[in-house]
Amino acid sequence: MLILVTNDDGIRAPGINALATRLEALGRVVVVAPDRERSAAGHSLTLHSPLRAELLVTDRYAVDGTPTDCVNLGIHGLLPRRPDLVVSGINHGSNLGDDMTYSGTVAAAFEATLMGVPSLAVSLQITPGIDVDFSRAADVAALLAGEVLAHTLPADTFLNINVPPGDPLGLRLTRQGKRLYSDVVVEKLDPRGRKYYWLGGGDPGFENTEGTDFNAVAEGFVSVTPLHLDLTNYRSFERLHSWGLEKMFTGYRRQGAGDE
Amino acid sequence: MLILVTNDDGIRAPGINALATRLEALGRVVVVAPDRERSAAGHSLTLHSPLRAELLVTDRYAVDGTPTDCVNLGIHGLLPRRPDLVVSGINHGSNLGDDMTYSGTVAAAFEATLMGVPSLAVSLQITPGIDVDFSRAADVAALLAGEVLAHTLPADTFLNINVPPGDPLGLRLTRQGKRLYSDVVVEKLDPRGRKYYWLGGGDPGFENTEGTDFNAVAEGFVSVTPLHLDLTNYRSFERLHSWGLEKMFTGYRRQGAGDE
Repeated sequence: MLILVTNDDGIRAPGINALATRLEALGRVVVVAPDRERSAAGHSLTLHSPLRAELLVTDRYAVDGTPTDCVNLGIHGLLPRRPDLVVSGINHGSNLGDDMTYSGTVAAAFEATLMGVPSLAVSLQITPGIDVDFSRAADVAALLAGEVLAHTLPADTFLNINVPPGDPLGLRLTRQGKRLYSDVVVEKLDPRGRKYYWLGGGDPGFENTEGTDFNAVAEGFVSVTPLHLDLTNYRSFERLHSWGLEKMFTGYRRQGAGDE
Repeated sequence: MLILVTNDDGIRAPGINALATRLEALGRVVVVAPDRERSAAGHSLTLHSPLRAELLVTDRYAVDGTPTDCVNLGIHGLLPRRPDLVVSGINHGSNLGDDMTYSGTVAAAFEATLMGVPSLAVSLQITPGIDVDFSRAADVAALLAGEVLAHTLPADTFLNINVPPGDPLGLRLTRQGKRLYSDVVVEKLDPRGRKYYWLGGGDPGFENTEGTDFNAVAEGFVSVTPLHLDLTNYRSFERLHSWGLEKMFTGYRRQGAGDE
């Protein structure tokens, strides 16, 4: 087994080291991770500047790019062959609900799935003031990595795994939950009297609905959410068809507005 | 009507100017856009450094952040009130299939939807060697913006609009298509003999399946894809439940492996 490990907290983060060490029980682990923190990088790709990969020690590469870059470069450039699995994490902090679309950790798993490689994203919820212990999350990651290798993931689908702090009470298959949003911009003045802004001020919480990832972790369970790459809202087609856009557009063209 | 306009090609791009000018027929347009190109920024958010917004002329703000930052800062900081609509684009190049998950243009519409504001992402397919004319795409954007304001978008859903080059033959409601991927890393040597890498070498094309966004644009039609924020693969639950993860995890805990 050949396993590519990455993250968005950077190659020096304790989470990725706990993960890589634990996964070595399953096969050869090659770490290709950002050389610094790249949180909230989303599914971003470096196209307009070249990337460097520094081999720190055997099978440990630091890349001056995003987690998505690392997966891309790992699979197509650095690894001796196509990996059997990509595991991203362990993220310092959960990636739940809509929030996970900002996450570089989740984006890396997304990228691997685009390239046809099975993948997991693993994140650990942090309780402020309590020491962070990645060992249980690493256990969970290794257990689920083994299951993914033993079974086969559904097409174009990866697992987004969130581990609660402490000893998990169990595991639940969940759906993506919804965050509640509020005004999240803080305005400040610099010493020269010019305005600047910070994003992400408050945390208004989430819709605590049964069956969601938020709910599972809040109740002390490991949350496993199958995510896919298709964002199409199929259930909306009927309603959108009722708008009559196709006909309207044809009428608009006949009036010559499109032929200026 | 108050409309927030953004993009990922930067505030000086011709696409955003064509769009903003055309949308002024519908109401007051405030442009909040990156001060430089931010293509392939994905759904990334600037959390660890402050943002600056420079007012260039009335209702035109240049922000030193990503498209996602611009929407966030626009809605919560710069606009006089919550906008009725966010329109992102017109992107120089299409955002089709899985590719659109990298797109800053699409991410901006995604962000607006998270904040509960109806939104559209508009992109123009470019044919190399042929002059780029944003006027038809601006017509299409204004037409669909009007429709979105007249009807109501389904919950948590935005429209990803792609316009073919030239005069569109019509409009189709489509689903997200799939790109074909190939080895996309180019390895080079710098003058000092050190390796570096470029991502995104080749373009192997897409699965040309009827009903997809790729197919509609390839056949000369405007593609309108309803996208939502929920990445859960609901159809995979039955299969994943058959793995028996919940039971397995409980058994694993009983063995004490989680209690080290």
